[in-house]
Amino acid sequence: MTETRTLSGKDLAADIRSQVAADVKALREHGVEPTLAIVFATSDGGTRWYVSSIVKAAEKAGLRAIERQLPDDSTTADIAAELQRLANDDTVHGIILQTPLPVGVDGGALAALIPFGKDIDGINPLSAGRLVIGESGFAPATAAAVMELLRFHQVPLVGRHAVVVGRSAVVGKPVAQLLLREDATVTVCHSKTADLPEVTREADVLVVAIGRARFITGRHVGAATTVIDVGTNTDDAGNLVGDVDAGSVVGVAAALTPVPGGVGPVTTALLLQHVIAAARAVG
Amino acid sequence: MTETRTLSGKDLAADIRSQVAADVKALREHGVEPTLAIVFATSDGGTRWYVSSIVKAAEKAGLRAIERQLPDDSTTADIAAELQRLANDDTVHGIILQTPLPVGVDGGALAALIPFGKDIDGINPLSAGRLVIGESGFAPATAAAVMELLRFHQVPLVGRHAVVVGRSAVVGKPVAQLLLREDATVTVCHSKTADLPEVTREADVLVVAIGRARFITGRHVGAATTVIDVGTNTDDAGNLVGDVDAGSVVGVAAALTPVPGGVGPVTTALLLQHVIAAARAVG
Repeated sequence: MTETRTLSGKDLAADIRSQVAADVKALREHGVEPTLAIVFATSDGGTRWYVSSIVKAAEKAGLRAIERQLPDDSTTADIAAELQRLANDDTVHGIILQTPLPVGVDGGALAALIPFGKDIDGINPLSAGRLVIGESGFAPATAAAVMELLRFHQVPLVGRHAVVVGRSAVVGKPVAQLLLREDATVTVCHSKTADLPEVTREADVLVVAIGRARFITGRHVGAATTVIDVGTNTDDAGNLVGDVDAGSVVGVAAALTPVPGGVGPVTTALLLQHVIAAARAVG
Repeated sequence: MTETRTLSGKDLAADIRSQVAADVKALREHGVEPTLAIVFATSDGGTRWYVSSIVKAAEKAGLRAIERQLPDDSTTADIAAELQRLANDDTVHGIILQTPLPVGVDGGALAALIPFGKDIDGINPLSAGRLVIGESGFAPATAAAVMELLRFHQVPLVGRHAVVVGRSAVVGKPVAQLLLREDATVTVCHSKTADLPEVTREADVLVVAIGRARFITGRHVGAATTVIDVGTNTDDAGNLVGDVDAGSVVGVAAALTPVPGGVGPVTTALLLQHVIAAARAVG
């Protein structure tokens, strides 16, 4: 039985938020009011809850936050018009386009409308490309949160084997790029991977971002594995559950981030930090 | 002793070139003269040889090719001015910025000046980002050549373990993205990887792009490994040698691309194919 360390994100998130609050104060003294705008086009309860949690966190840190809720039947052109308004508004420093978007809307075309400097959640293809090439820019906040958690808990990466399960453009792929930048050997697995447990058991660091509740179990991890659970699924009882079956992994893996209280709060805090960086770059 | 299959690139390159020649003819009949421009700022013999080999291949296929040799002491601004001229020239469909660039020149800034539609070697960060996100665009020709070779020789990829050694923005990283797109499980290794042979021996497909002559030997491969050698090094005798020590790998691995005659000719042919695609998109 391995003693599995819990890698909480709460203290780290609190640290980032208090630094953000101090930075906001300094920026205001220079006449800059750091401002975040969140665009969404759904009345889905979960999304609205998530958006308002970001707004609350922003306001608590002294940031101005603007919610732009568009109708559920918005078209690509409707959302594009809103993004262009915000792109041209010098008082807005960071823009988030929150998913899910209405069916039929061209998310790729919309992502490209968020100016690189305001793209604080790294969804513009230019942000993605600069990440690959190693140039400055905003990584998707969730991917950045995984890296900050690993750093905060002093998990070594140089030369270690990091395995990422999931290859989405918003988590899996950017996390792989960031792990590579930190000199880890990086494997990306997905639904087509043959014998997944064999691959993941060898991982020193296992990042799970597949969007399937409790998919990763004790047989997927080794005694040396640090598991980062990016999942945010809702179970039948309405509880937030990760992609990792914590009950089965605890006692087997070396360490595990909790859900909730792991990657999530760090992600929100980093979105605010990115707004500060964006405001500084133009302020 | 395994019988190691030789995966030549010559027949594939010839196929692509003859298709390009046919496409050129069709485009000319529609009044479009597909044109490639190559910008370089070095008098280095190897580079000049490489550039003129592309120009010769282009002209043989009926494409117009323009060489723009700038002085060895060109600045970022000098090269930028040339790229901007070509970017604005509607008669130019594809632009290659050939390395090495003069010391101190900002290659990243220059890459971003090649318009996305003319970026036939995929060096603009937007091209890189669209590759990650899965949107259309030109992949770096060398990375695309690796994939075409695997397809031509019917090497299966779905669910197989592909290992890429090297993480450059022009080969290793884009090859990893393309392998992932084909549903391989992909591991990226590099100079900091612990126990490289242990990782590479497990590979079904091993792509080597590290720029170190004969670095990969028999102990790095398994009997099931198909080895793609992207290396183009020059040995003391002036011969072109790969990153793989063919003498040591033959008899151990399942298959190996030769150097010369493997990835190289396919890369050149694909650059021409990309010019056709770029000309079609605007013609």
